[in-house]
Amino acid sequence: MRKISVIGIGAGDPDQLTVQAIREIERARVFFVLDKGAAKRDLVDLRERVLEQYGRDYRVVHAEDPARDRRPADYRAAVADWHRLRVALYTKLIRDELPEDGHGAFLVWGDPALYDSTITLVEAVAEQVEIEYSVIPGISSVSTLAARHRIPLNRIGEPVQFTTGRRLAEGLPGDAVVLLDANCTFQQYYGEDLDIFWGAYLGTEDEILLSGPIAEVGPEIEQRRAEARAEKGWIMDTYLLRASQDPSG
Amino acid sequence: MRKISVIGIGAGDPDQLTVQAIREIERARVFFVLDKGAAKRDLVDLRERVLEQYGRDYRVVHAEDPARDRRPADYRAAVADWHRLRVALYTKLIRDELPEDGHGAFLVWGDPALYDSTITLVEAVAEQVEIEYSVIPGISSVSTLAARHRIPLNRIGEPVQFTTGRRLAEGLPGDAVVLLDANCTFQQYYGEDLDIFWGAYLGTEDEILLSGPIAEVGPEIEQRRAEARAEKGWIMDTYLLRASQDPSG
Ligand SMILES: C[S@@+](CC[C@H](N)C(=O)[O-])C[C@H]1O[C@@H](n2cnc3c(N)ncnc32)[C@H](O)[C@@H]1O
Ligand SMILES: C[S@@+](CC[C@H](N)C(=O)[O-])C[C@H]1O[C@@H](n2cnc3c(N)ncnc32)[C@H](O)[C@@H]1O
Repeated sequence: MRKISVIGIGAGDPDQLTVQAIREIERARVFFVLDKGAAKRDLVDLRERVLEQYGRDYRVVHAEDPARDRRPADYRAAVADWHRLRVALYTKLIRDELPEDGHGAFLVWGDPALYDSTITLVEAVAEQVEIEYSVIPGISSVSTLAARHRIPLNRIGEPVQFTTGRRLAEGLPGDAVVLLDANCTFQQYYGEDLDIFWGAYLGTEDEILLSGPIAEVGPEIEQRRAEARAEKGWIMDTYLLRASQDPSG
Repeated sequence: MRKISVIGIGAGDPDQLTVQAIREIERARVFFVLDKGAAKRDLVDLRERVLEQYGRDYRVVHAEDPARDRRPADYRAAVADWHRLRVALYTKLIRDELPEDGHGAFLVWGDPALYDSTITLVEAVAEQVEIEYSVIPGISSVSTLAARHRIPLNRIGEPVQFTTGRRLAEGLPGDAVVLLDANCTFQQYYGEDLDIFWGAYLGTEDEILLSGPIAEVGPEIEQRRAEARAEKGWIMDTYLLRASQDPSG
């Protein structure tokens, strides 16, 4: 039977690969790589570096991810349409490019469990073509953020919510880790008693870290973010918003 | 200057170590290991296996973690007391056991950023004795849970809260990942339209996975959990509670 591995490769530093991920990369023979356009070129580069270092007798199958409406009127419907196009594309690619007893793999940025559609995609492909699939966890950008700032994500015994910029715009859900925020949504909360721990290009040479009380540091983050984005052409950033702690406690 | 590394080693499978963690283990010379009593013996064993495999010229300093009141009247005060005792203990250990230019390390279960006190401890020690410290992220039990069930933690674009059994008892915060739940708190939600994805001893030979609609699978989890716990003498489990999805969507 065809075998597919969904492999988390960490958030930017190839040394974040686990032993398990390396073994799986050594075993797979066909890697499906999405070209997401020039903006994400650096990300594709990291995947290629990982493959050059650890891959064996492998072949890369490039695919152009279907175009996606970035500002749709109906977000859910747009995601569902895009999902259907991708399932059809990958079903075809796996049928055409992976031998019937072949081992293929997807290298996923960070941890495949967080705000990534590859697992859902492969699950849907498995309804169209007989495959056996497994998932190898990876170090997420969020774990990297916490490690680089040397902080726990949660206050002792307290919850922390993982959310998106879009959802944060609707209200602050307590302590929160925010991904996928193109709009510096933290701006809305300059009036709150919050600390922000922000990181961009985590795990890469271009890593930027900033932290402090949100009203003080927020504007600086906005500026650094805009500059970095202009310079490189793209940015990936994430942050933790946390209730300020009594320094005496 | 003394150097301390806080190193995430994954949630049970030594192959979850990252290249970065392995390098740091190779460099450190003194490992501080907490003996948490017979119940946690297996956890200490994993640390020792990791050290035997990757450590070089190292020495292990064992410490008995201060006793902790497990059912205190005042939870926060008890945690604060315990924290002070630990800071004093580790400050002394680091002064006594680590040479002034030495490199020491703590191996932390899973990801040091999730419901673990080592970072906070080392930060407090750094106020007592001059050290330079860094954190290496690890694969958490939560990432492992998601990978083994082959699911994303979040529904597309939706938030997910990381929380504890204690907090879950106060109410359901939407989709939630629950750690530190000794009481099967999910029982409270058998009336809700939820799926549960449960895992115990994740990443180890004893791993157990169960999932499905909570009203159906919950009682089975309770039973398997009680049996496994009786047999091994301890259990570590975590789970995701997620709003049931319309199977047509
Ligand atoms: C589609 S999600 C994928 C998350 C990924 N699966 C993970 O575990 O990190 C992309 C978002 O992750 C965050 N992200 C991913 N890599 C990052 C990095 N190296 N530095 C900062 N943020 C990153 C950003 O918030 C970005 O918008
Ligand atoms: C003190 S917290 C530490 C969490 C750890 N830092 C992590 O990243 O997984 C301990 C809790 O983590 C969860 N846990 C840790 N290891 C686990 C494993 N191997 N299987 C299932 N749950 C685990 C359980 O909920 C347990 O009560």
